[in-house]
Amino acid sequence: MQKASDEARGNGMTLGFVPTMGSLHEGHLSLVDIANRFTDMTVVSIFVNPKQFGPGEDLKKYPKNVERDKRLLRQRGCSVVFVPDAKEMFNKNFKSEVYVRDLSRLLCGITRKTHFKGVTTVVAKLFNIVKPHISVFGQKDAQQAAIIRRMVKELNFDIKILTGPTIRERDGLAMSSRNAYLSNLERIEATVIYRSLREAEQMIRKGERRTRKILTRMKKMIQEKKKAKIDYVKAVEMKTLKPVEEVRGEVLFAVACYFGRTRLIDNTIIRVRI
Amino acid sequence: MQKASDEARGNGMTLGFVPTMGSLHEGHLSLVDIANRFTDMTVVSIFVNPKQFGPGEDLKKYPKNVERDKRLLRQRGCSVVFVPDAKEMFNKNFKSEVYVRDLSRLLCGITRKTHFKGVTTVVAKLFNIVKPHISVFGQKDAQQAAIIRRMVKELNFDIKILTGPTIRERDGLAMSSRNAYLSNLERIEATVIYRSLREAEQMIRKGERRTRKILTRMKKMIQEKKKAKIDYVKAVEMKTLKPVEEVRGEVLFAVACYFGRTRLIDNTIIRVRI
Repeated sequence: MQKASDEARGNGMTLGFVPTMGSLHEGHLSLVDIANRFTDMTVVSIFVNPKQFGPGEDLKKYPKNVERDKRLLRQRGCSVVFVPDAKEMFNKNFKSEVYVRDLSRLLCGITRKTHFKGVTTVVAKLFNIVKPHISVFGQKDAQQAAIIRRMVKELNFDIKILTGPTIRERDGLAMSSRNAYLSNLERIEATVIYRSLREAEQMIRKGERRTRKILTRMKKMIQEKKKAKIDYVKAVEMKTLKPVEEVRGEVLFAVACYFGRTRLIDNTIIRVRI
Repeated sequence: MQKASDEARGNGMTLGFVPTMGSLHEGHLSLVDIANRFTDMTVVSIFVNPKQFGPGEDLKKYPKNVERDKRLLRQRGCSVVFVPDAKEMFNKNFKSEVYVRDLSRLLCGITRKTHFKGVTTVVAKLFNIVKPHISVFGQKDAQQAAIIRRMVKELNFDIKILTGPTIRERDGLAMSSRNAYLSNLERIEATVIYRSLREAEQMIRKGERRTRKILTRMKKMIQEKKKAKIDYVKAVEMKTLKPVEEVRGEVLFAVACYFGRTRLIDNTIIRVRI
């Protein structure tokens, strides 16, 4: 992969990169479209990164279908599919880690304590292997995007980070490989996450600026669902991910919620002129 | 710097890189010679990295003489001197870290707990900024070299790491910017480190294989000096830095010792056919 990248770069081509864990859906493919738009050659990696799963999480049952993924990527104009070997990526004596303090401990980092260290470590590795000019991440994983941006800036990766908007099912549920885990009832109830985010937008459009009021209303909506168990519903500053009390400038409203045993996340960015 | 590197790489040149904290001596300059031998263009960075100094260490008094350093580098055929700004490298909200577990806690890591995290973080940054093909480190800092090799391999930096042999004063003392701190008596006594390493080599040449015997002899030699206070005298495996009991294959004999308030390190690599 490094040789292929060097060669492409040597020929004056620009490289785009979309790291994924496979089991691709329209969310991932829309990121490929973005990479294609801005670069000459798009690389997509498929790697179910063991380091970003905690004990008891869904590493073993995480959906896999590499042949289908490759076909979808080919159709979408992706030039290179990079599928590294798990043992080559992390041998049993692996000691290195890349970490972004503070940001990795907030929001999803509270229940998933080692998750973002796993993400930053594998993404740093993939950046060094793929050597892209541009890398595209989904805004659905808002905290991940914020942490990757921070890592890239602070560790001086010469890579431009772009984010692509969340792609949704017809009823508003954010696309996720984990939606496949949901029972019929859970699947129906899970749309409340999206509706709670729309509700927040509407309250703000009508003039509400107190995040406490908005978050209370969101939580109430979600809690009405039988299968829902809220992990967090928060309003935070985009770059630091710290809670905000008043909606001013850019605010990230983020939700994490279990439906049965499946943990789903979603968010919306609200922009209010100061 | 990133633009200059991309341009040189685009022109098919290979880049060598020697990261330093300035206050250059023949030890550093010999690394520049090595980089020159293997690459088309050598970049030397001068940056007194605050993150690798612990509280109470010598960050503030660390010797600085950038103009002299630049002159020496020019004479030695170094193409680019990179002197980054401290605030640009680490702003006050800097949150990212690159760390190699276990190896960073042994030997010097016992007294200098955050030292190697500071080293790996700044070297990862510098690698991403300078984008070299080859980077050269001094074997005098044996633990640093082992940790950097490990980081490069595990995080997939596409950089070949070379090490240059320790350069010594006429009486055997390993060259170090910190030698300037020594009083006359300390300077004279400090040569015992070198002599203890030669003694180890001689004992092994004569057939001794028990590291316990060798280390005891070395410690005794050093302790005889009035100003000496041993931090550690150890025999360890080259890659893992774990203690070995028997001299077989490659063994690193490493010494860290205070003379007055100045902490000096030195080492020798012993190779015994198995």
